[in-house]
Amino acid sequence: MPQQKWEEIAARKRAALAEQITAEYRIPHLLVPPADQLDVTTFPRESGWFTDKELEITDSTATHILQRIASRSWSSEEVTRAFCKRAAAAQQLTNCLSDFFPLEAIKIAKSLDEHLRKTGQLVGALHGLPISLKDNFNIVGKDSTVGFTSLVDQPAAYNATLVELLEKLGAVRYCKTNVPTAMMIAESVNNVFGRTLNPLNRKLTSGGSSGGESALLAFGGSALGVGTDIGGSLRIPAACTGIFTLRPSFGRFTTQRCRSGLAGQEAVMSVNGPMARTLEDISLFAKTIVDSEPWQADPKVLPIPWRAVPRKNKLKIAILWNDGMVIPTPPVTRALKDTVQKLKKAGHEIIEWDPVLHPQLLDILGRMFVADGGKSVQALLAPTEEPFRPEMIQYKEATEIGVHEMWQLHTDRSELQRQYLDQWSAQEGLDAILAPTTPYSSVQHGGFKYVGYTGVFNVVDYSAVSFPCGVAADKERDQPIASHSPLSPSCKEVHDEYDPDLVHGMPVSLQLVARRLEEEKVLAMTETVLQAIQPSKISSIISSIKSRF
Amino acid sequence: MPQQKWEEIAARKRAALAEQITAEYRIPHLLVPPADQLDVTTFPRESGWFTDKELEITDSTATHILQRIASRSWSSEEVTRAFCKRAAAAQQLTNCLSDFFPLEAIKIAKSLDEHLRKTGQLVGALHGLPISLKDNFNIVGKDSTVGFTSLVDQPAAYNATLVELLEKLGAVRYCKTNVPTAMMIAESVNNVFGRTLNPLNRKLTSGGSSGGESALLAFGGSALGVGTDIGGSLRIPAACTGIFTLRPSFGRFTTQRCRSGLAGQEAVMSVNGPMARTLEDISLFAKTIVDSEPWQADPKVLPIPWRAVPRKNKLKIAILWNDGMVIPTPPVTRALKDTVQKLKKAGHEIIEWDPVLHPQLLDILGRMFVADGGKSVQALLAPTEEPFRPEMIQYKEATEIGVHEMWQLHTDRSELQRQYLDQWSAQEGLDAILAPTTPYSSVQHGGFKYVGYTGVFNVVDYSAVSFPCGVAADKERDQPIASHSPLSPSCKEVHDEYDPDLVHGMPVSLQLVARRLEEEKVLAMTETVLQAIQPSKISSIISSIKSRF
Repeated sequence: MPQQKWEEIAARKRAALAEQITAEYRIPHLLVPPADQLDVTTFPRESGWFTDKELEITDSTATHILQRIASRSWSSEEVTRAFCKRAAAAQQLTNCLSDFFPLEAIKIAKSLDEHLRKTGQLVGALHGLPISLKDNFNIVGKDSTVGFTSLVDQPAAYNATLVELLEKLGAVRYCKTNVPTAMMIAESVNNVFGRTLNPLNRKLTSGGSSGGESALLAFGGSALGVGTDIGGSLRIPAACTGIFTLRPSFGRFTTQRCRSGLAGQEAVMSVNGPMARTLEDISLFAKTIVDSEPWQADPKVLPIPWRAVPRKNKLKIAILWNDGMVIPTPPVTRALKDTVQKLKKAGHEIIEWDPVLHPQLLDILGRMFVADGGKSVQALLAPTEEPFRPEMIQYKEATEIGVHEMWQLHTDRSELQRQYLDQWSAQEGLDAILAPTTPYSSVQHGGFKYVGYTGVFNVVDYSAVSFPCGVAADKERDQPIASHSPLSPSCKEVHDEYDPDLVHGMPVSLQLVARRLEEEKVLAMTETVLQAIQPSKISSIISSIKSRF
Repeated sequence: MPQQKWEEIAARKRAALAEQITAEYRIPHLLVPPADQLDVTTFPRESGWFTDKELEITDSTATHILQRIASRSWSSEEVTRAFCKRAAAAQQLTNCLSDFFPLEAIKIAKSLDEHLRKTGQLVGALHGLPISLKDNFNIVGKDSTVGFTSLVDQPAAYNATLVELLEKLGAVRYCKTNVPTAMMIAESVNNVFGRTLNPLNRKLTSGGSSGGESALLAFGGSALGVGTDIGGSLRIPAACTGIFTLRPSFGRFTTQRCRSGLAGQEAVMSVNGPMARTLEDISLFAKTIVDSEPWQADPKVLPIPWRAVPRKNKLKIAILWNDGMVIPTPPVTRALKDTVQKLKKAGHEIIEWDPVLHPQLLDILGRMFVADGGKSVQALLAPTEEPFRPEMIQYKEATEIGVHEMWQLHTDRSELQRQYLDQWSAQEGLDAILAPTTPYSSVQHGGFKYVGYTGVFNVVDYSAVSFPCGVAADKERDQPIASHSPLSPSCKEVHDEYDPDLVHGMPVSLQLVARRLEEEKVLAMTETVLQAIQPSKISSIISSIKSRF
């Protein structure tokens, strides 16, 4: 059979991306790990391809890197070169990038170094730090295909407002990261670039839709990245790879002039947020962005300055053991139990969260996504006759509704939002909900079936941090539940497909959820929770995660 | 012809409302002004029906009344009784109410007096103040028909969140005020209650959709009322009657659990705000509501506390002389010129505002309102076979669009919002736009044809105060422009129908517009503008407006 038009475009685009990995960034043939090596996070340290300095730089946190650059111990150029190299390796081993532009990056880094040398001043709070960006952040002259072949070779005519802001703050852009088609799949796979693999276990997904970011970050190819989230797209990939993310409420960070998968869909708003290997780094990003007053450039951003939150030693936390639809897989339930025990021991007040509203919230989320009958997706597939991916079948099968019916959906959603806040307020002094981020630690490619744990918090637009809780899946301890009584067909599917051997060793993440627009509070509370998990071992948890690199 | 079902329902409802005006509140037959008396604001003082104390109370500002109640100079009961009487008179002379419940109000007032007497404490910042509410604020057990006969005798099962909040703050509710059908006409006329008249000139409209409120306030039947605004519904009636209002950006005050004319329509958000005879009173309301943290009860309210704004002595103000579509009628243009002259004299920097984006913003506003093909309105008319009012013909003729097309509208609207802020930012240090609130001072019944001056600021969601600028229409000075070159068919219509004799003596209002979520700033700037208008005569402007009562 002759190759289809879309297949040719995709092949050409992939070849072009491969060309962007120039000789110096290609892993020497003899060093390439075998295809059946699952965990490739060991590669940078074990291959011998990286210098000690490159490893030191790329194993560092963003916060540390910024300090080193500010003190001129490190130049932005050497930092940028190190991350370009490690990102290139990540791409070759996990297919996590959608664009790579080291020459531009190094040029920017050099000019920042020059500026600092000449003036003694930093350009901004992110001076010299390479920051990776999800594919949908428009950058002048570069594609933002969000996985559609029809958008290949359609370079952006303008920068996303966040891109402009990061530039002003001194960040260095050097790559864009892979996403699923339209960013509407919980894994990162599309017909242009194919599938991103989880560097911790290449048989598993790095999640989606910000799964290029999560793979890159987990591999150490970036210290700080920016993703987006409309149903879990920051938290799911963060959880699949054991990194940190903040899903802010809409209006704290700017989403203006980004490519959207469902442009103009507003019933549930997409947000963007930081992804990194430490809580400190996502907090740094959040504060820095808000301090730069993004509402001056984006009318949708709220003029709420970064607020100091008083430290609370005793939190009142409601636990979402399961959402009434899908029971988490054994490692996740064990991780939640373990965390609750530690929180109680640390003196925090624990209550239970009744997921009574979750089924309705999740149902309405699904209906809002396909309210246009999948026409937005279809319009992006049609020009190249690209087929619907099987994961997006609901967009193919959807029937468009009229605006009148949409208005009823809005009314129903607003009423659910009201009820959710009422339920929260009924628990006097409640600080947070602690919930699984997903029912999985991670899952095999094509196996991510359920986004209910994240999606409901998009509908109510609450602020949430997903964090690795220090528990890893264990094939001995996390055997399938013999007497499992599924709550739903999805629940049955999730548990039928659960494979303790496959996910053995994978980190488990939980999400801490605060109310709408409580970003400062949820970050501060996550720190408190991390301290409860292992008072003396916070740094060792982080370094145990890092030691995998 | 037999009466139609909807006509019977309406007649019954009107009769019931008339019955609520019990004997003590009925204007004695001999005192009723003749039907051809245009200005009835003189009635309370000239009729002899009101005691001096009743006049003193009802001529007072909300701020003053609260002080008097707090100091126990006045009881809430006597204040409430006085406003009930004057509101009843307003209803009989201008048809401004949709509900009236003096007995309940007096009972509440008595219990507040009792509380203060017993505890020495105020219940809240609005202790004892009667506050009038637009018809769409749900109150348990009372109708919110928003002008539809199908909604007669459908009493609310819950209170609007603002109603609950006002109760907690100690406000006394005593009446609800008339609106146009679905609150989507710029005058206050509907098939249930008929038409509200402007108490300053009963041949003219009091505006809409919060025109029951504006008539009541201008007559002195309320010191403080709450209306709503989706295309000008606070500002137009305030301008038609020479009172003050604040149109906040969405998210400062709660709109939760109110009856909407177009339920679930979110492309442009309805907001609510205070209406009163002084700037001080609308500021009092705004601060009091925000200080009560409405975000605790309404998830759509933003947790932005009331912010102190530094006083700026020199403002940079851009003047919108006309919006490129409709040239204001002569009194409005003269008022704007006069105000600009005074602002310049007071040392403020004046530039011009280019309305380049206004036509597109207005066009998109119109399309968003009818995106459901008028089905929401139709669904409320159908049960009683109530016909479309002629002012709402666009809802009858509209064709519903699908969600996909709606998403394009959202995208276009967001782009216009971005461009509008860009245009603002390009004028470095710009503080405000000064614009006509409407092309009219007021206009004859059925003559309000153009809402472009207010509507565009709903689309960009900017904060705005409409204020009487101290200029009144003058039939000698404000003759029609002989050489008028209309900018559009609407412009021609507005000027063809302009009648200097009819509007002679009517106050002219302007609106001061700040950016999104700058409510504190726009209120503070309005004070500065008022001082520039007449440094020594601020109080006399206000009292000259008040002296009409």
